[in-house]
Amino acid sequence: MDAHEIRALLERVSKGEESVDSALLRLKREPFDDLGFAKVDHHRGIRKGAAEVIYGAGKTPEQIRAIAQNMLDAGEKTVLMTRLSREAADYVKKTIPLDYNEAGRIAVAGSLPEPSGVGNIVVATGGTSDIPVAEEAAVTAQALGNRVTRLYDVGVAGLHRLLNHTEEIMSATVIIAIAGMEGALASVIGGLASCPVIAVPTSVGYGASFGGISALLSMLNSCASGVSVVNIDNGFGAGYMAALINHTGTK
Amino acid sequence: MDAHEIRALLERVSKGEESVDSALLRLKREPFDDLGFAKVDHHRGIRKGAAEVIYGAGKTPEQIRAIAQNMLDAGEKTVLMTRLSREAADYVKKTIPLDYNEAGRIAVAGSLPEPSGVGNIVVATGGTSDIPVAEEAAVTAQALGNRVTRLYDVGVAGLHRLLNHTEEIMSATVIIAIAGMEGALASVIGGLASCPVIAVPTSVGYGASFGGISALLSMLNSCASGVSVVNIDNGFGAGYMAALINHTGTK
Amino acid sequence: MDAHEIRALLERVSKGEESVDSALLRLKREPFDDLGFAKVDHHRGIRKGAAEVIYGAGKTPEQIRAIAQNMLDAGEKTVLMTRLSREAADYVKKTIPLDYNEAGRIAVAGSLPEPSGVGNIVVATGGTSDIPVAEEAAVTAQALGNRVTRLYDVGVAGLHRLLNHTEEIMSATVIIAIAGMEGALASVIGGLASCPVIAVPTSVGYGASFGGISALLSMLNSCASGVSVVNIDNGFGAGYMAALINHTGTK
Amino acid sequence: MDAHEIRALLERVSKGEESVDSALLRLKREPFDDLGFAKVDHHRGIRKGAAEVIYGAGKTPEQIRAIAQNMLDAGEKTVLMTRLSREAADYVKKTIPLDYNEAGRIAVAGSLPEPSGVGNIVVATGGTSDIPVAEEAAVTAQALGNRVTRLYDVGVAGLHRLLNHTEEIMSATVIIAIAGMEGALASVIGGLASCPVIAVPTSVGYGASFGGISALLSMLNSCASGVSVVNIDNGFGAGYMAALINHTGTK
Amino acid sequence: MDAHEIRALLERVSKGEESVDSALLRLKREPFDDLGFAKVDHHRGIRKGAAEVIYGAGKTPEQIRAIAQNMLDAGEKTVLMTRLSREAADYVKKTIPLDYNEAGRIAVAGSLPEPSGVGNIVVATGGTSDIPVAEEAAVTAQALGNRVTRLYDVGVAGLHRLLNHTEEIMSATVIIAIAGMEGALASVIGGLASCPVIAVPTSVGYGASFGGISALLSMLNSCASGVSVVNIDNGFGAGYMAALINHTGTK
Amino acid sequence: MDAHEIRALLERVSKGEESVDSALLRLKREPFDDLGFAKVDHHRGIRKGAAEVIYGAGKTPEQIRAIAQNMLDAGEKTVLMTRLSREAADYVKKTIPLDYNEAGRIAVAGSLPEPSGVGNIVVATGGTSDIPVAEEAAVTAQALGNRVTRLYDVGVAGLHRLLNHTEEIMSATVIIAIAGMEGALASVIGGLASCPVIAVPTSVGYGASFGGISALLSMLNSCASGVSVVNIDNGFGAGYMAALINHTGTK
Amino acid sequence: MDAHEIRALLERVSKGEESVDSALLRLKREPFDDLGFAKVDHHRGIRKGAAEVIYGAGKTPEQIRAIAQNMLDAGEKTVLMTRLSREAADYVKKTIPLDYNEAGRIAVAGSLPEPSGVGNIVVATGGTSDIPVAEEAAVTAQALGNRVTRLYDVGVAGLHRLLNHTEEIMSATVIIAIAGMEGALASVIGGLASCPVIAVPTSVGYGASFGGISALLSMLNSCASGVSVVNIDNGFGAGYMAALINHTGTK
Amino acid sequence: MDAHEIRALLERVSKGEESVDSALLRLKREPFDDLGFAKVDHHRGIRKGAAEVIYGAGKTPEQIRAIAQNMLDAGEKTVLMTRLSREAADYVKKTIPLDYNEAGRIAVAGSLPEPSGVGNIVVATGGTSDIPVAEEAAVTAQALGNRVTRLYDVGVAGLHRLLNHTEEIMSATVIIAIAGMEGALASVIGGLASCPVIAVPTSVGYGASFGGISALLSMLNSCASGVSVVNIDNGFGAGYMAALINHTGTK
Repeated sequence: MDAHEIRALLERVSKGEESVDSALLRLKREPFDDLGFAKVDHHRGIRKGAAEVIYGAGKTPEQIRAIAQNMLDAGEKTVLMTRLSREAADYVKKTIPLDYNEAGRIAVAGSLPEPSGVGNIVVATGGTSDIPVAEEAAVTAQALGNRVTRLYDVGVAGLHRLLNHTEEIMSATVIIAIAGMEGALASVIGGLASCPVIAVPTSVGYGASFGGISALLSMLNSCASGVSVVNIDNGFGAGYMAALINHTGTK
Repeated sequence: MDAHEIRALLERVSKGEESVDSALLRLKREPFDDLGFAKVDHHRGIRKGAAEVIYGAGKTPEQIRAIAQNMLDAGEKTVLMTRLSREAADYVKKTIPLDYNEAGRIAVAGSLPEPSGVGNIVVATGGTSDIPVAEEAAVTAQALGNRVTRLYDVGVAGLHRLLNHTEEIMSATVIIAIAGMEGALASVIGGLASCPVIAVPTSVGYGASFGGISALLSMLNSCASGVSVVNIDNGFGAGYMAALINHTGTK
Repeated sequence: MDAHEIRALLERVSKGEESVDSALLRLKREPFDDLGFAKVDHHRGIRKGAAEVIYGAGKTPEQIRAIAQNMLDAGEKTVLMTRLSREAADYVKKTIPLDYNEAGRIAVAGSLPEPSGVGNIVVATGGTSDIPVAEEAAVTAQALGNRVTRLYDVGVAGLHRLLNHTEEIMSATVIIAIAGMEGALASVIGGLASCPVIAVPTSVGYGASFGGISALLSMLNSCASGVSVVNIDNGFGAGYMAALINHTGTK
Repeated sequence: MDAHEIRALLERVSKGEESVDSALLRLKREPFDDLGFAKVDHHRGIRKGAAEVIYGAGKTPEQIRAIAQNMLDAGEKTVLMTRLSREAADYVKKTIPLDYNEAGRIAVAGSLPEPSGVGNIVVATGGTSDIPVAEEAAVTAQALGNRVTRLYDVGVAGLHRLLNHTEEIMSATVIIAIAGMEGALASVIGGLASCPVIAVPTSVGYGASFGGISALLSMLNSCASGVSVVNIDNGFGAGYMAALINHTGTK
Repeated sequence: MDAHEIRALLERVSKGEESVDSALLRLKREPFDDLGFAKVDHHRGIRKGAAEVIYGAGKTPEQIRAIAQNMLDAGEKTVLMTRLSREAADYVKKTIPLDYNEAGRIAVAGSLPEPSGVGNIVVATGGTSDIPVAEEAAVTAQALGNRVTRLYDVGVAGLHRLLNHTEEIMSATVIIAIAGMEGALASVIGGLASCPVIAVPTSVGYGASFGGISALLSMLNSCASGVSVVNIDNGFGAGYMAALINHTGTK
Repeated sequence: MDAHEIRALLERVSKGEESVDSALLRLKREPFDDLGFAKVDHHRGIRKGAAEVIYGAGKTPEQIRAIAQNMLDAGEKTVLMTRLSREAADYVKKTIPLDYNEAGRIAVAGSLPEPSGVGNIVVATGGTSDIPVAEEAAVTAQALGNRVTRLYDVGVAGLHRLLNHTEEIMSATVIIAIAGMEGALASVIGGLASCPVIAVPTSVGYGASFGGISALLSMLNSCASGVSVVNIDNGFGAGYMAALINHTGTK
Repeated sequence: MDAHEIRALLERVSKGEESVDSALLRLKREPFDDLGFAKVDHHRGIRKGAAEVIYGAGKTPEQIRAIAQNMLDAGEKTVLMTRLSREAADYVKKTIPLDYNEAGRIAVAGSLPEPSGVGNIVVATGGTSDIPVAEEAAVTAQALGNRVTRLYDVGVAGLHRLLNHTEEIMSATVIIAIAGMEGALASVIGGLASCPVIAVPTSVGYGASFGGISALLSMLNSCASGVSVVNIDNGFGAGYMAALINHTGTK
Repeated sequence: MDAHEIRALLERVSKGEESVDSALLRLKREPFDDLGFAKVDHHRGIRKGAAEVIYGAGKTPEQIRAIAQNMLDAGEKTVLMTRLSREAADYVKKTIPLDYNEAGRIAVAGSLPEPSGVGNIVVATGGTSDIPVAEEAAVTAQALGNRVTRLYDVGVAGLHRLLNHTEEIMSATVIIAIAGMEGALASVIGGLASCPVIAVPTSVGYGASFGGISALLSMLNSCASGVSVVNIDNGFGAGYMAALINHTGTK
């Protein structure tokens, strides 16, 4: 119930059209849906027309297909499916046309929305092994209505590769910096860029990289301002956060 | 050298006013300042008129006052000083009028700029012990041209306190969620809000809170989308990041 | 020897029916069984009629079936088998009728006892991936004579889902709060409920969830009073503890 | 507002005694207190007459005294103050009679309530250095209406000391087991007792005790059933949890 | 070279039978074998007649058989093979009679030596899952000339089981206490026994047992005196250490 | 009660001098002291005449002096006081003659017993900063009736210093190897010696020595057989363990 | 662009052959390759003639072969391939002659260069299980133009084995010390040698070796001067670093 | 004894001037000094004329002065004192002229040697707070005969500051890269330079920098080749290692 509905209810009580008991019961039973906790699906609402999201992890191909079909039937233009195995994608594809990104294990049913954000989201990686996380981030951002530029394999050990892209970095609206091992990419980009940087540590590496902890700590301790961090390998989270930022003031 | 200077150099070469050798030497010796790495002070540039920042930690009161005076002489309207002890503040105050926030150990010289961001930044804390970090974040954001709403002591153990502020949460442009102990505030706010949430773990707590690690891990693992994290107790970093986000598309 | 037997022994000595030496030897050889360390099986005794428990982990199907048969032959009405694989369950089933809960990998032979506890145990989970641990807890509690209400997938990122169940939460006698990732569920429920809350971290999550450590720390640091914690994924332990609490004063 | 007040409001609306607008405003402004989130102070409500609690940590002596006076003026019979330094206690004492427990850094103003729980709470410690945490737990439980038995210095390295108290252990309703170093006390008591055991790791020890982590892990991994754990040194939390359990079915 | 050989060399020099240069070279080239660093195989030498040891881990069945044959040919009476898979044991058995202990993955070729130690070594475990480590320890100790008593599944959660064996514990010369999970067995035995106790943490457990770390920390922090610790799952190391202790003064 | 007292009791019952009820009560009230859990002070019993031990940590000088006086009055020849500050020692000294070892913060009242062990205990340290821990170990061992040889500052970085003492190392009955930083001393000594080695990590070092964790892990992973480990900085524990070993077969 | 090309560009401008605008654009677009960031492949350049390196990890056999062929076609004399599986090596071998080192999973195509370093690199390991890492280091160093001496299985538990090689150790130019478990080898060698020592922790071990962390910490805390450390199992990194050192002053 | 002395001894034996027994005793008693383990002070020997080192930590001012005087009396030209407090320095200065570097807490008595290394050692820091560690490294290197260039506050967040020094970086013989927080400096320099880089993590930072662990892990995981790491804050170790490298081939 929103404020209008409560007012209507009170007016019905005031007019004797609804009994006090019935009104009380109604208020007791739905106190929260009524009051604005409306994020039924908490991946929505960035903007009208943005994608619905299905987390594929822990769901059977049958479940994924059923949910997706449901959403499309309900009129959704874009349905995003994350952590989707090749096998599950093949199964869904039998009845629902699908654009599957194997590296990022992510798929889009329906069509990608027109970019509606303020500017451009740059997705940068330190190495080629970080690309799966980057693709998850990039496709997520695209499905949520953003223009995306990919800068892969621009790690700091070969600084010239990164510096060759100074222009893209300095003109971005948001940057997602993805790196494993020592995770220095986030700091260097944070030092070059004047926009918000979302850092994503990856579990790429061995030995003392400890499955991404080293990169995570590195990014949390970044000496550059304007850098914040999401969980290890969380490409979706970074893409979602970047999409929110790129739509600041547009809703 | 910026692009204009390089052009001027090339023109001098073209006109024979400068030899090839001399030009080559000049290019070799100053390659970087020339080419746009202009973030001389990397806390600037959010917007014309935003505050200059002086990190107080590790600087003597004398150094802080000298730098601040310098900046004001150079025409800066707002100078922000972080991690500033009461003693250092008292010293600076002798010659420079200062608005000192003791809780946040942060001060502003000059005047706060007019808010220039897209909307409102909400700074929320789980408990009263988190307020020092919150004040650092809030004053930082104000000094960088943002309107700030403070919601303190709205921790999840007394959920009604938080829910009483649903309206502020749902209408914010960016939210900074600050909590120690189990850090659940970020997830609950992340579930309620539709804007980006910057989570700040604090070192508040004892025992297995491990100086903020527990809250940090909690926030990195948030099940809510649209949450990213900065370092433990890093109020300045959160305020800066929020300011960047709130100025998306305004520059 | 219990007190009665010691008295009998002393009386035989007093009457000269048993020599001092023989009595001394007897006391020396069985000092402990005699004196009340009667928890022969330490999963018993909550109440007459409660289930016997067989830990399936590390036992062969043959061993499990033999022990269960033994217990049933000895007159046990309810035999609970935990950490029981589908294969082992199938094997046991050949000769012993079994109610097998595949999600929780737990089975009951015989019949569930009538609920004998003070009130109701609520088993709540943050997500659907936590259900296996929840089912282990729920079936354990039922087999130990408790009425159980399941509230699954009520994680804090969609707060309305949890708040829709305020009534169940506020009328519970004990609540088991099960969550992975950031484990905030325990704190939010702890803030709403006035009964004891047993928190169970799960190993659900990835990256910085570190196999449940993040949720564990979060729960140990809960800012809500009346919350205590068991080991990661320890559904049985939580169900057992809740059963003990729900039988307070009933024995 | 509770259900009665909402009913009264609706009836006033129904009778025309209150306008719809005024009723709506009332509902909007106090939506949560009204609807059952009544734990205004979440340390209350175990039972009518139980103590109010003031966390002393992070509060000035002046604040503590003011809050306590407030509560007493409002008719509270028992006010519990935790983490209270000797100095703060001396200050409060000037105007409010106080029973100060220096070991536990905890005080009671007013009178202890009559025990109203089901049975007896046993507070046991491994060594004498664990006594401060134990006193915090014991006084908390007493202030919340429980009978408490203290068994101090019964650590497992001198097993006979513990076994001499078998009777108290086996007849308790709840046991709080407090130990630092290797924390084995919780397991041994858990094996002897048939009631719930709340384990409290303490930061007592040196070297590889890591400020209580060793004891914490030990307790979480207890091989005994019916043991759950609270944060390191959290005597108050253990006392509160034990009080809740000991009042199961009494409210 | 041992002292005898050096003397012989010096005498040859003294008699002019060997030149100074030749003697100098000899001394320079073999300085260490000469001077008593005689532990060619560092698992030998406890006593004449004790077993030779072959670590099976990282060796092929062919290598193991070859080394064992070698040792037997050289007159060794007892050859111990640790970390030996069933497959490797089967292979070796084809040509060398072998007493293979599958639980402990350890085998003896030749015959066990007569016990030559001071007294009895007790090997105790907390649970049945610790038996593989215990068997490795027990067979190692036997192969090194010790009498061994096994006390399995005497964990502290069922204290009566342990106390039933007080006599064995109090009359032992050395005790090996093996436990996973919370590792409390070492402390309880350390409190009962007056002989040295070697504690072995095992990787048995789940969740916060962290592969044996919890038990390891517990044992290092034992409040009982006379307890020292070896690496997680290191049954061989414990058996070897116990054998050394049990031979104190016998060599 | 020991066996003699129980026999006496039984005889009184047998003779009718004591009633069955009275005897039963007596047995029930003191079941454990009676039955052999005689380690009233668990630092005793290595051998008649060995020292009593008072842990100074957490005791006031007054308490320490009172306990010591008590023991001496009771006829103890040697009283050992550990973790004793210079101030506490000065206080005790006023009435009890004391041999205070300032480096080891340990004192002996009465006289040191004649060495009664099998052989010699060597106490070796890697550096001079490890000496406080070493002195605690050495004096403990002496007070418990052992002959002790000190080899200080023989760390592996200057191998010749250690090798100069090969003879002491190879003829020792037990060796205590004490080192901080990388703790390699234990492995090198373990490789040279044929007797049991007790390794003591110390908190000496900085940076990644993590207060002794580095040395602790190093020692637990020693590639040499016959090495076991006690807690960080636990000189007393090592001295006690070594004393037990050196008395194997002598009791 | 290198300095020659910039000079050429400036000369064209000077002669009017290229316009100022065109030159400016050129400078803006490739500012870094031009100015000396020439480490296009950052594994090159130790010296003319040294090997090119292909990291095999994460590359398909097809990719590896293509890159290698490319390099050979471009005139490279030596191509080094690391982390190369037996299968990938077999595939590459079909068309490119290859010297494959199975232990080190590393291969060389073309011929090894003549040693061009200052002296000799010693590669030492504590045990036989460390040999794979050692071979990776040794072959890397050889491929980069160094003479290499292998000293395997010289761990400190059998000190005589190491001391037998004092001469090689004392005459080396750089030493790579490779060990798992407690990693003491680096300290002992560091104490004997007067040249730089590169320490490589390996993941060899079990239990508290924690996949190499124990050895890593040990090496970082080495009490010997002149020791620095690379990542766990990073044989390539150690070989590369040693090669750089051995070519100091030769380029 | 060195080889000359052994030869002399053998010659005396050969000539009958010394008996076999006497020679044998001599060889037995000093076996190691004799045979080349000559690093009596293991901070020597880089080159004739290099500094002697006194570690000030854990030594009294009196001890330090005495040792230094000793060394100077023995003819040492340069004596280096590390971890020297201002107070200790003042004390030593009273009798020995001293060049004290307060930032680095390091002093030189006597004169700095002429640089004798191959080239130049660059000491770079990320921030100004890293300077104490840097000065310790720089003065150490100078005292060991090296030319040193300091590049302070060139952290990666302001990349232009670092890139302005490309020339120094590319022409260095060894670089010491010192940084706290995220430690990215080592990777970026490692990518730019072609010489060995010694990385020093510092304990500078707060929150998740964990006293230098974050920087340490970052540096160990550096994606640049030719980087190795020393302990946190170990400026002396880095300076020593760099000095060894810079003298490769010069001895």
